Amino acid sequence: MLNIIILAAGKGSRMQSNIPKALHKLSGRYFIDYLIDSVRLLKPDQIFIVVGYKEEFVRTILKNYDDVTFISQKEQFGTGHAVMQVIPYLKQNNSENNKTLILYSDMPLIRDKTLKKLIDSTIDLTILTNRLDEPYGYGRIIRDNKNNICKIVEHKDASENELNIKEVNTGILSIKTSKLIKWLNLIKNYNVKKEYYLTDIIEIAFLDKAIINSLQPNFLWEALGVNSPNELSFLERMWQKYQADVLLKQGVLISDPNRIDIRGKLYCEKDVFIDIGCIFIGNIQLSQGSYIGPYCIIEDSIIGTNSKIYAYSYIEKSKINANVQIGPFAHLRPNVILHENVKIGNFVEIKNSIIGPNSKTNHLSYIGDTEIGENVNIGAGVITCNYDGFHKYKTIIGDNAFIGSDSQLIAPVSIGKNATIGAGSTIVQDAPENQLTISRVSQKSIREWNRNKNNKK
Amino acid sequence: MLNIIILAAGKGSRMQSNIPKALHKLSGRYFIDYLIDSVRLLKPDQIFIVVGYKEEFVRTILKNYDDVTFISQKEQFGTGHAVMQVIPYLKQNNSENNKTLILYSDMPLIRDKTLKKLIDSTIDLTILTNRLDEPYGYGRIIRDNKNNICKIVEHKDASENELNIKEVNTGILSIKTSKLIKWLNLIKNYNVKKEYYLTDIIEIAFLDKAIINSLQPNFLWEALGVNSPNELSFLERMWQKYQADVLLKQGVLISDPNRIDIRGKLYCEKDVFIDIGCIFIGNIQLSQGSYIGPYCIIEDSIIGTNSKIYAYSYIEKSKINANVQIGPFAHLRPNVILHENVKIGNFVEIKNSIIGPNSKTNHLSYIGDTEIGENVNIGAGVITCNYDGFHKYKTIIGDNAFIGSDSQLIAPVSIGKNATIGAGSTIVQDAPENQLTISRVSQKSIREWNRNKNNKK
Amino acid sequence: MLNIIILAAGKGSRMQSNIPKALHKLSGRYFIDYLIDSVRLLKPDQIFIVVGYKEEFVRTILKNYDDVTFISQKEQFGTGHAVMQVIPYLKQNNSENNKTLILYSDMPLIRDKTLKKLIDSTIDLTILTNRLDEPYGYGRIIRDNKNNICKIVEHKDASENELNIKEVNTGILSIKTSKLIKWLNLIKNYNVKKEYYLTDIIEIAFLDKAIINSLQPNFLWEALGVNSPNELSFLERMWQKYQADVLLKQGVLISDPNRIDIRGKLYCEKDVFIDIGCIFIGNIQLSQGSYIGPYCIIEDSIIGTNSKIYAYSYIEKSKINANVQIGPFAHLRPNVILHENVKIGNFVEIKNSIIGPNSKTNHLSYIGDTEIGENVNIGAGVITCNYDGFHKYKTIIGDNAFIGSDSQLIAPVSIGKNATIGAGSTIVQDAPENQLTISRVSQKSIREWNRNKNNKK
Repeated sequence: MLNIIILAAGKGSRMQSNIPKALHKLSGRYFIDYLIDSVRLLKPDQIFIVVGYKEEFVRTILKNYDDVTFISQKEQFGTGHAVMQVIPYLKQNNSENNKTLILYSDMPLIRDKTLKKLIDSTIDLTILTNRLDEPYGYGRIIRDNKNNICKIVEHKDASENELNIKEVNTGILSIKTSKLIKWLNLIKNYNVKKEYYLTDIIEIAFLDKAIINSLQPNFLWEALGVNSPNELSFLERMWQKYQADVLLKQGVLISDPNRIDIRGKLYCEKDVFIDIGCIFIGNIQLSQGSYIGPYCIIEDSIIGTNSKIYAYSYIEKSKINANVQIGPFAHLRPNVILHENVKIGNFVEIKNSIIGPNSKTNHLSYIGDTEIGENVNIGAGVITCNYDGFHKYKTIIGDNAFIGSDSQLIAPVSIGKNATIGAGSTIVQDAPENQLTISRVSQKSIREWNRNKNNKK
Repeated sequence: MLNIIILAAGKGSRMQSNIPKALHKLSGRYFIDYLIDSVRLLKPDQIFIVVGYKEEFVRTILKNYDDVTFISQKEQFGTGHAVMQVIPYLKQNNSENNKTLILYSDMPLIRDKTLKKLIDSTIDLTILTNRLDEPYGYGRIIRDNKNNICKIVEHKDASENELNIKEVNTGILSIKTSKLIKWLNLIKNYNVKKEYYLTDIIEIAFLDKAIINSLQPNFLWEALGVNSPNELSFLERMWQKYQADVLLKQGVLISDPNRIDIRGKLYCEKDVFIDIGCIFIGNIQLSQGSYIGPYCIIEDSIIGTNSKIYAYSYIEKSKINANVQIGPFAHLRPNVILHENVKIGNFVEIKNSIIGPNSKTNHLSYIGDTEIGENVNIGAGVITCNYDGFHKYKTIIGDNAFIGSDSQLIAPVSIGKNATIGAGSTIVQDAPENQLTISRVSQKSIREWNRNKNNKK
Repeated sequence: MLNIIILAAGKGSRMQSNIPKALHKLSGRYFIDYLIDSVRLLKPDQIFIVVGYKEEFVRTILKNYDDVTFISQKEQFGTGHAVMQVIPYLKQNNSENNKTLILYSDMPLIRDKTLKKLIDSTIDLTILTNRLDEPYGYGRIIRDNKNNICKIVEHKDASENELNIKEVNTGILSIKTSKLIKWLNLIKNYNVKKEYYLTDIIEIAFLDKAIINSLQPNFLWEALGVNSPNELSFLERMWQKYQADVLLKQGVLISDPNRIDIRGKLYCEKDVFIDIGCIFIGNIQLSQGSYIGPYCIIEDSIIGTNSKIYAYSYIEKSKINANVQIGPFAHLRPNVILHENVKIGNFVEIKNSIIGPNSKTNHLSYIGDTEIGENVNIGAGVITCNYDGFHKYKTIIGDNAFIGSDSQLIAPVSIGKNATIGAGSTIVQDAPENQLTISRVSQKSIREWNRNKNNKK
C-alpha cells in the first residue's frame, strides 16, 4: 500500500504573499497541480495534503481533487508535527511493502519516475538528495565511517568538515509506514522554536539500526524548493530551458531557446519552426510544417499542417486546419474553427465561429458567433453585431458570398450563397442568394463649404 | 560647504555620436539626470557642470536645472584643465569641512549613499575605486610600502607588477576645497597631448604628506564609465538586472528577470505578477494583485487592485481602478481614467477619456475626448469623431447607454442615459434618454446581379 | 583555376527533418545561400554542389543559381565518395595554381576572407581547423615529431594522448586539383560502413611527402557544423550576438544585444536607437537619428532621418522618409511610400500606397492602392474599398482633403483637393474639390423603446 503525504501547511513568509505556497504558480499552474499529477501516476492508495495557512482557501481551490484527503495542521510546529497529523489516517495492510512518500508543496517539479525509484527501494528509508557544488544553506547528509547515512545536519549547525559535504537533503523521503509511525513518535521538539523536525527521523532510524539509502533525481530542478520570488523565477527559467531542450531534441526548430515559454504541453510534429518570444499555454499541437512567427501566444489549440501564424497573433482554444494563414495582429478567441486555406489578416478578432475552406477576412473585423461557408470574402471593417445588450445571436454567411467593407451584419441574420453585400451596408434582414443587397444613401456634394466654419462632418 | 563638479565637456568620440555624452540615455533618461538626482540628495551648496562639446545644446536641454551653474571649457585639455575652469567659482567658508566632489557625466548610476560616504570622510582626499578581477585598461591604485595610496598609474604606463593590481581608479573623488585649489595648480601638462590629468593630483597630494583614502561602491555598476555603445548596453543590462532583483526581493513575481525593462520607478504592492517582456516607463504603481501580461508597455500610470492587463497592451499616463480588464492589443493614450470593473478589449484606442464603472468597449473602437457613464456598452467599431480638422470636441455618453456597432458619434454630442444607438448610425445631434436613435436606410436587394460585371459595391 | 565543391548530399538525420540540410535556414536564409554568396566573392571558375538526399527538391529550389553545377551522388558512401563524383567535371589548366576548395552545406557561415586565405596558400593542401577548449567528439589533427600534420584521427579512434589535442578538423580544405585527383584514388573503404572518408586524404598526402598546413578562422562560428536543431539554435544565437556586436562597434545604440534579430543586412547611420526585441529581415537602412521602438519587425525597408517607429510595428518593403512617425500597432505591407512628416497611428494597415508630406492616418484604417496628397487627414476607421472580389482599383486623395471617420472610399474613386468627406459616408463617385461630400440619413429617435424587447439595433 502506498500513502502520499504532501506538506502544504506553511505560510512561506519569504514569498511575501497572501497566497499560500501550494497555490503559487510555476508556468501558470499551481505548484500542487504538478505534484498531484505526478503522484497519481504512482497509483497511490491515499493522497493526503496537510493544510494550515489559509486552509479554507486551499481546500476551496482544490475541491475537485476527490482522490485527495485534506488534513488540518491548525498550528504549525514543524514538518515532523505536520506528518504526525496524518498518522491516524494512514492505511496499512499486512504486506511488507507498506510505504509512505513525503513530499512538499514547494517542490513542484519532482517527476513520477524519480518517485517510483524512491518507493521501489525495498529498504526502510530512502531519502532524496541533491549533490550541489555550492551547498551553502542546505542540510548536509552525514555518513558514518562505513559510509552509512546517519543523520542530517542543518547548515547553521554544521562543523567545518560537514560544511564541505556536497550531498544535501531535499526533504523528500520514502519510508515504510510502520517505521514512520514508530520513529515519528521519537522526534523531540527540544529547540528554541519548539518544533518537530522530520529530518530528525534520519538519526532516529540510524540509531534503530535501519539501513538508510539516498537517491538523486536525474535533474536538479526536480527537487529545488521554492522559497522566494527569486527562487521561483530561477526554477521557472530552468524549467523553460529544459522544455526547450526536449523540443530541440525532438527536431523542433526554435529560434531562441531562451525566449520560448511553454506553460503546459506542447506537442510538435516534424519540421515545425517556432520564432522568438512565443508563449504556449495548455495543450497545444503544432502539426507538420507549421510555422509560428515571433511573439505569438497560443493556448489550448491545434495548428494544422503547413499553417502559418504570423507575428503578434493570439490564438485561444481554437482548431486551425491545414494551410491556414493567420496574422499578424490577429486574435482568435475561444471556439474558432478555421478550415483549410483560410486567411485571417491584421486587427481581426474572431470568436466562437466556423470559417469554411478558402474564405478570407483580412482586415480590421469582428466576427462573432458566425458560420461562414467556403470561398467567402469578408471586406475590411466588417462587423457582426451579435449582441443586443441582452442576448447573443448567430450570423450565417453562405458559400461564395462577398461582404463589402464596413458592413454591419445584425444578427440573427443570414447571407445567402453567392450574395454580395454593398460596402457600408447595415444588414438587418436575410440577404438573398445571388443578389446584391445594399443599404445606401446617394452621395451629395455641398458647394461653398468652409471646413472651418461648418462643423459636424 | 559642499561643491559638486560634474565633468561633461568631452565629446566621447568612442560613442560615434553627434550627441554629447551627458545627453546619452540609460533606460530612457539622460545620464546627467541621474547624476543631478543623486547629488541633490547631498544638499550641496553649488552644482557645477563643466560643458564643452556642443555646450549650447547641453545648456538648452538642461535649462530647467536652476540649481546648476554651467561652466564652459572652450577647449578640452584634460580632466585637470576641466576642473581648473571651475576654481574661480568655488565657494568656501571658514569651516574645516569645505569639500568638493568631482563626478563624471558618463558614470550615471553612482548612488547618493556612496557619495555621502565619500564626502563624510574627514581626511583631505578620498577616491572611489573598484576592485576588478579583470582590471585590464584601467588606471591602477599604487600604494607605498606602508600601504598608503601614493599615485595612480595608467594601464599603458604600468609595470608588470603594477598590472597585477586589482584596485582601479574610477576618477570620482572627494577633496577638501582648499587642497583642490592648491594641488590643482601643481598639475603639469608634460605629455604628448599637453593635457592636464586630474589623476596626477593623487601623487601631488601624497608628496604633500596628505593622507589619501579609497572607498568602494556597494555595486559595481555605480562607477562603471560608459565610453561606447557596447559599454552602454552592458550597463543598461546590469541596471535592469539589479532593478528586477530588487523587485523580486520585495515579493514581486517576475516571470523572467532577464526580460523586464524598468525605465523609471516601478512601485509594486503585494502579489503582483509581471509576465515576460514588459516595459515600465516613468512612475508606475501596480496595486495589490494586479497582473501584467506579456509584452505590455506601461508609462506613468496606476494599475488598480486586481486589475489585469493582457498581452500587447500599451498604457500611457492613465489611471486604472480596481478589477479592470484591458487588452490584449489595447492602447490607452494619455489622460484616461477607467473606473472599477471596466473592460477594454482588442484593437481599442482610448484617449483623454473617463469611463464609468462596469462599462465596456471590447472591440476595434476609437474613444477620444469622451465621458462615459456606468454600465455603458460600446459596440464593435464605434468611433467618436472628436476632430473636425480644426478643433477637438467632447462626447458624453450617459449611464446604461448601448452604442450599436460601427456607429459614429460626431462630437460635440451627448447620448442620454439608457439611450440605444442603432448599429451603423451617424449621430450628429444629441440622442435622448431611453429612446432608440438611429440613422438608417432600408436594405434592398437587386436581382440579376453579376458581381464581376457590376462594380462599386 | 579555382573549383568549389560543396557537399550537400547527406540527409542529416539528426535534424529529424524532411528537409535536406542544405535547405535548412539560419536567420531565415538557406544554409546554401550563405555559402554561394561567400564563394562567389572568390570568383571561382566552377561551383559544384553534390546533391543526393531529395536532390530534385534541392535542384528545384536552387534552380536560379545558373553558375552552379549540380552533381548527383545517388548513393551516399561517405565524403570521399561524394568528391569522387565531381572529379570528371573538374577544370584544370597548365598553371601551378589549380585549386579545389571543399565546403559543406552545414557550415553556412564560413567567410570569404577565410576561404581566400585557404586558397592563397601556395602549398598542396591546407586544412581549416578550430582550436577548441572542449574538443570532445571532433576529429583531432595529428602532427609528427617535426610538427607536420600527418593525419586526422576521429574521436572514437583516438588514443588517450590524442584526445588531449585541442586542434580539430572542420573538414573544409583547399587542395591542388591535380593532387586531389591523385590522392582521392588512394582512399579505401576498409571500414564497417564501407564508406570513403575524405579525411583519409590527409594521411595519404603526408605519406606522399606533401606539406600540409592548417589555418584557423577568425571566428569560431565560421566553421561550426550544424547537425541538430540544438546546434542550429546555438549557431543562430552566436551569429546574432556577433551581428549585434558589429552594430554596437559602429555606434548603434542597442538596448539589449541579446534581444535583437538581424536576418539579412542592417545598415545604420549615426545615432540610431534600437529598442528591445526587434527583428530586421532582408536589406534595411536605418537613417541618422532614427528610433526603432520595442518589438518592431522591419523587412526590406528604408527608415528616414529622425523617423520614429513605435512599439509593435510591422513594416514590409516600404520607404519611409524623414521625420515620419509610425505606430504603435501599425502594419505597412509592401510598397508603401511615406513622405516627410507623415503620421501613421495604431491599428492602421497600409498597402501599396503613397502618402504625401504632413498627411495623417492615425486610427483603425485600411489604406490600400491609394495615392494621398499632402496635408491630408484620414479619420478613424476609414476604409479604402480597393477590391470587388475580382479586381483591385485605385483611390486618389488630393492635397488638404479631410476624410471623415468611418467613411468608405469605393475605388476607383478620386477625392478632390481640399475636399471634405462627411463621417460615415460611402463614397462611390469622385468627390469634387473644396466641397463637402456626404451620404447620410437623418437621425431619428424612437420613443417607448425597450431595448430588451425590440431587437435589431
